[in-house]
Amino acid sequence: MRIARPLKRLIESFQKLPGVGPKSAQRLTYYLLHVPQTEIDAFTDSLTRLKRETAVCSICKNVDETDPCFVCSESNRDISRIMVVEQPLDLVAFERTGKYRGVYHVLHGAINPLENIGPDEIFIDDLFKRLNEASGVVKEVIIATNPTMEGDATAMYIAKKINETFVNGNTIDVTRLGMGIPTGADLEYADETTLTQALEGRRTM
Amino acid sequence: MRIARPLKRLIESFQKLPGVGPKSAQRLTYYLLHVPQTEIDAFTDSLTRLKRETAVCSICKNVDETDPCFVCSESNRDISRIMVVEQPLDLVAFERTGKYRGVYHVLHGAINPLENIGPDEIFIDDLFKRLNEASGVVKEVIIATNPTMEGDATAMYIAKKINETFVNGNTIDVTRLGMGIPTGADLEYADETTLTQALEGRRTM
Repeated sequence: MRIARPLKRLIESFQKLPGVGPKSAQRLTYYLLHVPQTEIDAFTDSLTRLKRETAVCSICKNVDETDPCFVCSESNRDISRIMVVEQPLDLVAFERTGKYRGVYHVLHGAINPLENIGPDEIFIDDLFKRLNEASGVVKEVIIATNPTMEGDATAMYIAKKINETFVNGNTIDVTRLGMGIPTGADLEYADETTLTQALEGRRTM
Repeated sequence: MRIARPLKRLIESFQKLPGVGPKSAQRLTYYLLHVPQTEIDAFTDSLTRLKRETAVCSICKNVDETDPCFVCSESNRDISRIMVVEQPLDLVAFERTGKYRGVYHVLHGAINPLENIGPDEIFIDDLFKRLNEASGVVKEVIIATNPTMEGDATAMYIAKKINETFVNGNTIDVTRLGMGIPTGADLEYADETTLTQALEGRRTM
């Protein structure tokens, strides 16, 4: 059984994507053989421009076309509230509820000892730098990491460090998303009502 | 709710792929943000080279790096038997069984009146040109189109036309894959045993 190398290569590229198995990768590749070249060009073009035309926000680490990102650029945001999320898509999910007017901090991951991801591998230091620089301004940090082992570990780590660091004077409330999120689920798939409920039911850690 | 344009564009490109919904498209896009640029470059490179480095075989219309393709280039193939398949992946599936030593003809589709795909939109004419040119050589045409409405229509059309065209002298047996294939299924997902059974159980149309 032989598959031409250019096809094999693309199958391998597709297989590296999450949720794409060998069969789907084959299918997608052979499907593209019948697609007009202009459409494939549009695809490669969007891939090429993905990182070139986006930037990580220097304030909150969200990914956007501009730096600061659209959230950090909005003047009517409540900067006394920072919601800490794992991924840019989680931010998108909360923006979709239209119920949150604070700002964000995107970690780009969660603490995961099994995969050698410690606090230094994600944007946790940047969060504390931010809290120190805006001393007295931030009143609440809402931890909205995923309700998984890794998300929980990350939440615990951040909460502990905030409570240790800001013990006198400028106390910061550390809250975590409350009821509404089914355990083990993935934040970005939660519906708007669930997210709104979780936001309203947040509790002090 | 706002997503940066470069991200939106890639989400749209992913969504055009079969079986990729809006949520998966979003997920794949944001996943790629965390992938090293070299890996993205490898992906775009394989996409770019997909069509540039492959050719449609001038004999059987299979897609390969060489023309004629690897099947048509093999000297020990039984050229008196032509198996007609819809897609190159179907050919790959039959090659995987190792039980078929004849050659192929790849239609690149099936007759589908609802989508305006008639006999002229797929490589049916080329099949008859081939049968005419190799007059007397081809003894059997095995029709291995999918057991769907479109595949059945295509099989009927080809069988009828062969029986009308080669009525005197050079008769050609027209057979179709037999038992073993569950109806409504897709050929490329069938296991090797099923495909072998179907090959053995083929019957005259």
